Amino acid sequence: IDTKLPKVGTTIFSVMSQLAMEHKAVNLGQGFPDYEPPRALRDAVTRAMGEGCNQYAPGIGLASLREQIALKTERLYGRRVDPVSEVTVTSGATEALFSAIAAVVRAGDEVIVFDPAYDSYEPAIELQGARAVHIPLTVPAFSIDWQRVRDAVTPKTRMILINSPHNPSGATLSAGDLDELAAIVRDTDIVVLSDEVYEHIVYDGATHQSVLRHAELAERSIVVSSFGKTYHCTGWKVGYAVAAKALSAEFRKVHQYLTFCTFHPAQVAFAEFLASDPQHYLELPAFYQAKRDRFRELLKPSRLKLLDVPGGYFQLVDYSAIRDEDDVVFGEWLVKQGGVAGIPLSPFCDKPPGTRLLRLCFAKNDATLEAGAERLCKL
Amino acid sequence: IDTKLPKVGTTIFSVMSQLAMEHKAVNLGQGFPDYEPPRALRDAVTRAMGEGCNQYAPGIGLASLREQIALKTERLYGRRVDPVSEVTVTSGATEALFSAIAAVVRAGDEVIVFDPAYDSYEPAIELQGARAVHIPLTVPAFSIDWQRVRDAVTPKTRMILINSPHNPSGATLSAGDLDELAAIVRDTDIVVLSDEVYEHIVYDGATHQSVLRHAELAERSIVVSSFGKTYHCTGWKVGYAVAAKALSAEFRKVHQYLTFCTFHPAQVAFAEFLASDPQHYLELPAFYQAKRDRFRELLKPSRLKLLDVPGGYFQLVDYSAIRDEDDVVFGEWLVKQGGVAGIPLSPFCDKPPGTRLLRLCFAKNDATLEAGAERLCKL
Ligand SMILES: CSCCC(=O)C(=O)O
Ligand SMILES: CSCCC(=O)C(=O)O
Repeated sequence: IDTKLPKVGTTIFSVMSQLAMEHKAVNLGQGFPDYEPPRALRDAVTRAMGEGCNQYAPGIGLASLREQIALKTERLYGRRVDPVSEVTVTSGATEALFSAIAAVVRAGDEVIVFDPAYDSYEPAIELQGARAVHIPLTVPAFSIDWQRVRDAVTPKTRMILINSPHNPSGATLSAGDLDELAAIVRDTDIVVLSDEVYEHIVYDGATHQSVLRHAELAERSIVVSSFGKTYHCTGWKVGYAVAAKALSAEFRKVHQYLTFCTFHPAQVAFAEFLASDPQHYLELPAFYQAKRDRFRELLKPSRLKLLDVPGGYFQLVDYSAIRDEDDVVFGEWLVKQGGVAGIPLSPFCDKPPGTRLLRLCFAKNDATLEAGAERLCKL
Repeated sequence: IDTKLPKVGTTIFSVMSQLAMEHKAVNLGQGFPDYEPPRALRDAVTRAMGEGCNQYAPGIGLASLREQIALKTERLYGRRVDPVSEVTVTSGATEALFSAIAAVVRAGDEVIVFDPAYDSYEPAIELQGARAVHIPLTVPAFSIDWQRVRDAVTPKTRMILINSPHNPSGATLSAGDLDELAAIVRDTDIVVLSDEVYEHIVYDGATHQSVLRHAELAERSIVVSSFGKTYHCTGWKVGYAVAAKALSAEFRKVHQYLTFCTFHPAQVAFAEFLASDPQHYLELPAFYQAKRDRFRELLKPSRLKLLDVPGGYFQLVDYSAIRDEDDVVFGEWLVKQGGVAGIPLSPFCDKPPGTRLLRLCFAKNDATLEAGAERLCKL
């Protein structure tokens, strides 16, 4: 069988998690915590299962959960969204991203993505018969050079895909960045797809600049987030998309035929939990900043150079003092010889990034961070 | 925003469930039971959540669950499949169908579907830039006229999509049908996509003729099934696809970027449950046959004509003695005036089917069937 995705193999996350297991490495690769979701949340799932919430949820998501998402959006970003027509619950952020791209992007279109770009974006674009136009972020800050974006826009540009806090670098967009973006898409029919799954994880007192804060952009954007990263349950697969009514309508047409709905009991649980503890996610910056700082402290004796981490839960490290080789080669060497799994950046880039960077996940218990750091300091 | 899916509105299932709620109708529309999944299964989900199974499952599905699916496939259909390379767990059968179509079908291709066809097939095909070629099933048996299939095959035919037991009619394919299909696809590069979500629900002592029983067809097929229909938990969204290695590889490329994985704790639970009670689904034919027969008995005094139901959990009824109108109009009238929600067949058909049939779900407790029948007998 001829492949429709010649450039695609098994996602790097699966490859590295598999390798980590085989080599008993400390797994700082795939982005998931090694601690558990709140007990109250798990109990709520059990309760929902016992109370007859085991059949299809509404395809657009449970009303009570959409309501909570709308409340959160207003509270945090000052934007009123209609839970009936503008919020859709999805099977994780991955499905939301795919549905958004499939709903908007057509054959022949161009979609601007910023490299390194999360690895699901481009295959989703290519499956529409469209083309990803890659703009490298400016290292080491992983910032967007807006002039390059202006130069890259053509009449075929149908979507610009942004991601803040950025995976893998943790870079965040500023209000000024959003203004630049708004000026570019003004008077075009470009849709903005904003991947904000790390929305609650920003550091050093910063404020997450959600597209939803930006009235003009919000009107033409699909904003994607996830409960997996926020509530330490990446395996529960509940995400959502917020978009203006007309865009949401197109989004939902695709979503309903992609997965129809996601695990019903968890939707009940998230609705309850958000209602009873709407502040939980406000503790995340301090929670993760402690982890970030601890991990950086632990790595001080190593020969790794640590890049700044403004958001998210990944630490980029420059390993050039240890080995002068391609990041995929280094990543494999590290898991096999160094006993630590990380994620190379090349699979997130159209062209080899020309950097010597590896991504390490610090959403881990102290013991894991210590074990990982101990090995990394030996390199 | 211009729509990519001009023919698509909100899926009929959502529309009818919503209407049923608003009008306090007995909901015999959307296909889900009003009883619960086995207690042991729910307990196993709770246990899995307590035992740290809350992060991403492997993208292709939990090894133990794929193992159980392979064992079941061998036990039931005599086919050995490799759980490592030929079984993929998905976010429900809907996602499996979409992934299969997106992995195989390209722009300009043709996909043969049989009307009435489940409503997600065509949008998934159209999103690939391909075209669904509709062949009406021969009523009232809803059987396939293979000569029409031979006539419809062109060099562009890339896939034939079959569904047995058939939704909405319950019609089942025979071993002879599979031979006919095998002869048609032999020496072509046509892939068969076989939707077998009602595989365990066949009546009157019949045997489900899975494509997996047919060595030649199985080699070129993607077979989709679901735990939702089998274990009374349609809202848990765990399905799977079985296909030969090369096809599975293409399938997985898409699946990993569509949803990556599905709710992890339920995968643990299904793996445990299948291992400890591999015979559970063998009780389904008797369980549902009793419901079918009871529902038919209850409807005897009505003016509805009941079609035969060889499989699945839907009863087609001919309402022409009651009202001579289009099935969508009748469906709306029935939910509003008659207090019963069913599903019209038109949304499953390219051309109005020219029948006066409505689908009623009998996967319901006796009380629900009685309440529904009482209202239906008053018409
Ligand atoms: C869906 S697996 C990848 C998880 C993730 O977001 C990451 O590691 O970047
Ligand atoms: C995904 S909602 C539709 C459920 C179903 O299989 C049906 O009612 O036919």
